[in-house]
Amino acid sequence: MPYRQLPQIQDLHRRFLDRLQHAQDDKEPRGLYEPIEYILSIGGKRVRPLLALIAARMFGDGEGLRAGMPVAMAVEVFHNFTLLHDDIMDESPLRRGQPTVHRKWDTNTAILSGDLMLIQAYGHLAESADPSRIPVLLNTFNRVATGVCEGQQFDVDFERKHHVTIEEYLRMIELKTAVLLGGALEMGALAAGAGQEDADHLYAFGRLTGLAFQLHDDLLDTFGEGAETGKLTGNDIIRNKKTFLYIKTLEALDAGEREELVHWFSHTPEDPAPKVARVTEMMRLRGIPELVAELRDDFQRDAYDHLEAVTGDSGWKAVLRAVAEGLLQRAS
Amino acid sequence: MPYRQLPQIQDLHRRFLDRLQHAQDDKEPRGLYEPIEYILSIGGKRVRPLLALIAARMFGDGEGLRAGMPVAMAVEVFHNFTLLHDDIMDESPLRRGQPTVHRKWDTNTAILSGDLMLIQAYGHLAESADPSRIPVLLNTFNRVATGVCEGQQFDVDFERKHHVTIEEYLRMIELKTAVLLGGALEMGALAAGAGQEDADHLYAFGRLTGLAFQLHDDLLDTFGEGAETGKLTGNDIIRNKKTFLYIKTLEALDAGEREELVHWFSHTPEDPAPKVARVTEMMRLRGIPELVAELRDDFQRDAYDHLEAVTGDSGWKAVLRAVAEGLLQRAS
Repeated sequence: MPYRQLPQIQDLHRRFLDRLQHAQDDKEPRGLYEPIEYILSIGGKRVRPLLALIAARMFGDGEGLRAGMPVAMAVEVFHNFTLLHDDIMDESPLRRGQPTVHRKWDTNTAILSGDLMLIQAYGHLAESADPSRIPVLLNTFNRVATGVCEGQQFDVDFERKHHVTIEEYLRMIELKTAVLLGGALEMGALAAGAGQEDADHLYAFGRLTGLAFQLHDDLLDTFGEGAETGKLTGNDIIRNKKTFLYIKTLEALDAGEREELVHWFSHTPEDPAPKVARVTEMMRLRGIPELVAELRDDFQRDAYDHLEAVTGDSGWKAVLRAVAEGLLQRAS
Repeated sequence: MPYRQLPQIQDLHRRFLDRLQHAQDDKEPRGLYEPIEYILSIGGKRVRPLLALIAARMFGDGEGLRAGMPVAMAVEVFHNFTLLHDDIMDESPLRRGQPTVHRKWDTNTAILSGDLMLIQAYGHLAESADPSRIPVLLNTFNRVATGVCEGQQFDVDFERKHHVTIEEYLRMIELKTAVLLGGALEMGALAAGAGQEDADHLYAFGRLTGLAFQLHDDLLDTFGEGAETGKLTGNDIIRNKKTFLYIKTLEALDAGEREELVHWFSHTPEDPAPKVARVTEMMRLRGIPELVAELRDDFQRDAYDHLEAVTGDSGWKAVLRAVAEGLLQRAS
């Protein structure tokens, strides 16, 4: 069953949206709070808060939901803050099919509303039911948030660099994507009273799933069916995006072909079809898709090993596994 | 004696700069941390961290410095974060006589580095020597930081509004400036073990001093000697800035003169001298400078009453009074 249809997920999702919906009510000045309300209302899969709530339920039983909700709010508001500021930096016109905040309002509003969202994320942490847990949650949140900013800067740096190693690339996607998935689980568990060892295993599970998900995403973009992703296949190649596939291919090629690939990635031809065809051919000939799929599966296997080691409720562990499987199938 | 020459202030200032100096060492990626190092190194009076450290010494004796340092770092990093993002929004080329971060690097760097500074401010809070104090510090910091963002938005809104009341204006400067001065004192005291009542009195002292300071600053800008402020007199009038003086004058005028004042503030003539002369004349004729000076003195008197009520060390209370006097004389 797709994880979205699990009754446990549907229940947590509904409760989370209830909490999210009125968070900006009655706050002034409206010019500051309306953009926050807007970005939080235009959807998204709410994966991070669900992970936090699942981890909290895994350790907190009936009280888990109350214990995990502040963390769920904190990670979702933080994630949307990063989207808001990233959209300014990337000059993106659309987010989830809707105008971005800096387009619907203006850049200054997007900067300031984003700043306040980051403060609000910490405000939610401070609402934790058990204040004695706040110092450890604060430390974890700071570590994760710092990592996300560092990952964003590495990504910017890579755009300008000629040579990026596989290790550097993996570190970048780890920071940019994986640590927040891991952090949501770790903090959800800690908020509900889990020990650090269990929290660490959940963090590792989230982090490795995040890495697997990113590689899966890269594969789908280049080798998936358009219908599967709702996006054009080959989009990363058209946009000269230095994905894991690209870097791995570059490593595998001999000098002449390497020059050809670098050349394809140095411009954006009017008709992208021959470029996409030739680049995917180069990738296929070197067995890159299989190689990346294998690495993805390694990450996911390691992730499940960490999940196995967690001592929390087995029913909720099964739910978590279903979520990971769902993310990797894009059945979500 | 000017407060900067007090041995207690010089000692705290030196220790604070020692702590500040190496906070960004060895952190990667450098493209993210160098702008932070830069903005924190180009000076400023360090008033907010000094306030936090004085309050901590007032209650923590020998341990006060260690207890107060995380708060001192948090408020200084937070304050510089607001400057960094404000400079983007205002398109300011200079800060403290040096190029702003978005000019020296670029806007995207300034956004992201600023975001990380806000996270770092919370990181410093989390370093508090007594973890049981962290929840109350976190709540106070969130309240203050939220206020500063709201104040910034009110300021933006006022630029576009025709009519701003005195109450609205005071609320704006309270949020934009005064709450962080009060918050630095409140958090410094709380970190060193003060009770909430003493912390509240210190907050009120800082808030009222901040309000008095802002009115003093407005007065100096329009009626001070250029030599006293290092700025051109009448700068606010030339820039059509709706200060307390302007709003108060508008309230006091009859309909015909009100129209004249609004007209002067609707454009920026090539030669500003006649505009400055006429506007200051209108203000003088209605006794506005005296009225504003009186309100400033009322705020400051109330501030000293709150300081009197604080139960902490009287030597450090005298130091704090000297700082407030110094700020209001601009002898600093």
